[in-house]
Amino acid sequence: MKPIKRVLLVGGTHGNEWTGIYLVKKFERSPAWIQRSTFQCVPLLANPNAYVVGKRYVDTDLNRCFRQQDLQDPTLVSYEAQRAKEIHRTFGPEGSQPVDFVIDLHSTTSCMGLTVIPSSSHWFNLHLAAHLTARPHVHILYSPHRSQDSPYLGAIAPLGCTIEVGAVAQNVLDAGLFRQTESMIMAILDYIEAYNQGQITLSKQRLISYQTFDSLDYPRNRQGELLGMVHPQRQGQDYQPLNPGEPTFLTFDGHTLVYEGATTVYPVFINEAAYYEKQVAMSLTHRVPLELSAYGIK
Amino acid sequence: MKPIKRVLLVGGTHGNEWTGIYLVKKFERSPAWIQRSTFQCVPLLANPNAYVVGKRYVDTDLNRCFRQQDLQDPTLVSYEAQRAKEIHRTFGPEGSQPVDFVIDLHSTTSCMGLTVIPSSSHWFNLHLAAHLTARPHVHILYSPHRSQDSPYLGAIAPLGCTIEVGAVAQNVLDAGLFRQTESMIMAILDYIEAYNQGQITLSKQRLISYQTFDSLDYPRNRQGELLGMVHPQRQGQDYQPLNPGEPTFLTFDGHTLVYEGATTVYPVFINEAAYYEKQVAMSLTHRVPLELSAYGIK
Repeated sequence: MKPIKRVLLVGGTHGNEWTGIYLVKKFERSPAWIQRSTFQCVPLLANPNAYVVGKRYVDTDLNRCFRQQDLQDPTLVSYEAQRAKEIHRTFGPEGSQPVDFVIDLHSTTSCMGLTVIPSSSHWFNLHLAAHLTARPHVHILYSPHRSQDSPYLGAIAPLGCTIEVGAVAQNVLDAGLFRQTESMIMAILDYIEAYNQGQITLSKQRLISYQTFDSLDYPRNRQGELLGMVHPQRQGQDYQPLNPGEPTFLTFDGHTLVYEGATTVYPVFINEAAYYEKQVAMSLTHRVPLELSAYGIK
Repeated sequence: MKPIKRVLLVGGTHGNEWTGIYLVKKFERSPAWIQRSTFQCVPLLANPNAYVVGKRYVDTDLNRCFRQQDLQDPTLVSYEAQRAKEIHRTFGPEGSQPVDFVIDLHSTTSCMGLTVIPSSSHWFNLHLAAHLTARPHVHILYSPHRSQDSPYLGAIAPLGCTIEVGAVAQNVLDAGLFRQTESMIMAILDYIEAYNQGQITLSKQRLISYQTFDSLDYPRNRQGELLGMVHPQRQGQDYQPLNPGEPTFLTFDGHTLVYEGATTVYPVFINEAAYYEKQVAMSLTHRVPLELSAYGIK
């Protein structure tokens, strides 16, 4: 693999996720923080209009607008569709300033701590992820079958990761999470710098990953209205095991619903505000150890 | 004082504060929960349009629209101004269904636990507040000089309280806080019932109150843009003492700002999402013990 020459550091793909937005603003004011000797790092506020109105998006979720077919579809003219095309035109593979690596900063109302989501199973992404798990409260959420035609912003580059931090409310800054996120960005940039300088030794190692395979919706009536909420015993328990028969939801009338699957799973994105409309109360993952060799997964 | 004949139970004065909204929806479906033998309890979703769009308000903050002069001003025609007039016309003193007591349910992204804000210093409000502090995590936020011409929804009735619960993100339900809020509503209704039945003994007692006297804004530049956030040592420390010289804010550049007042204060509403636009990073209170006599404050 060639050296990484340009990194895109994205905040505000969702306009109400302030952690990334204010980090990007900080780095726009003080670019020295994100500069390294062997590559350029470009900060980008991805959805400025959504930030202005304090919402996740104006017309549609920007982080679902990056499929190839959609980027090439001239009939898609929502604000976010146009913004995606603009970002792709600038930073994509045939863009005016193509980037090799994308860091996309998100926050969540779920207790996700510091979650790293590699944009692909490329060995560099996974060895970087393993490197980051040496830090406290870091988990790796990983989709080995992630489509070649992903709708996510990270799809514009061959390498990269999304960072999800939480729990933090929308349109709020939490200083502790802000600093932890900043520290993780520094660790990623330092790792890229070390790689470019030939200083990374890719040792054989084990990486614990969480792989999403399904999701649970809230209990609802036929009109789609909520009938209950995440059970108090499950609230805030992201990445903790959920065994068959254990509580998942509590209805407004006080009835406990339990998990009806056959095996232990590990829920994440539990009670994320933006996912009510996506009918996701929690994503279900399997806990999968990956054996990394010197060149990726064995 | 005469018996209390009608109680208004309000949720969704702010459209993105779901705890109260879903409690009101529950009680609309199952009114038996809030009925008592000596009075009527009417559930009300105060700002339905704001709830539909998932925002605090459509045009302006409904909970600032209840001043007498504003209710009588025909030139005020925003959605919330009209909604306030409608609520006042129905449930106010000259309304078609005047109420004696208002419970207004709010939630907050601050760690306010269960906060009771009496709508006035009437002895009934304060003895009720003292009764509720026997429960865990309950604090009383109290403004003895609260204007006779209050802008808050509770101003439509002679008695009542606002309940603030948190921390919970906007547009999210937290089952634990939902149940604690429901339990507090039951306690209030039971207290009113007992009062109506002549079963309340107003004993002399001490009530710890927190009285707001000022607020601190976030550090900002001249354009009003944020330069920092609540300090990690202060985040989540609502109702805890803040001494002169202790950290209040952390700038994005890593500088700690400290409290420059002369005496110990007790911040509340620390880092409430909706108060960024009101230039309030935290409200400052004094901790004031009140000696309640059999007929109110001595």
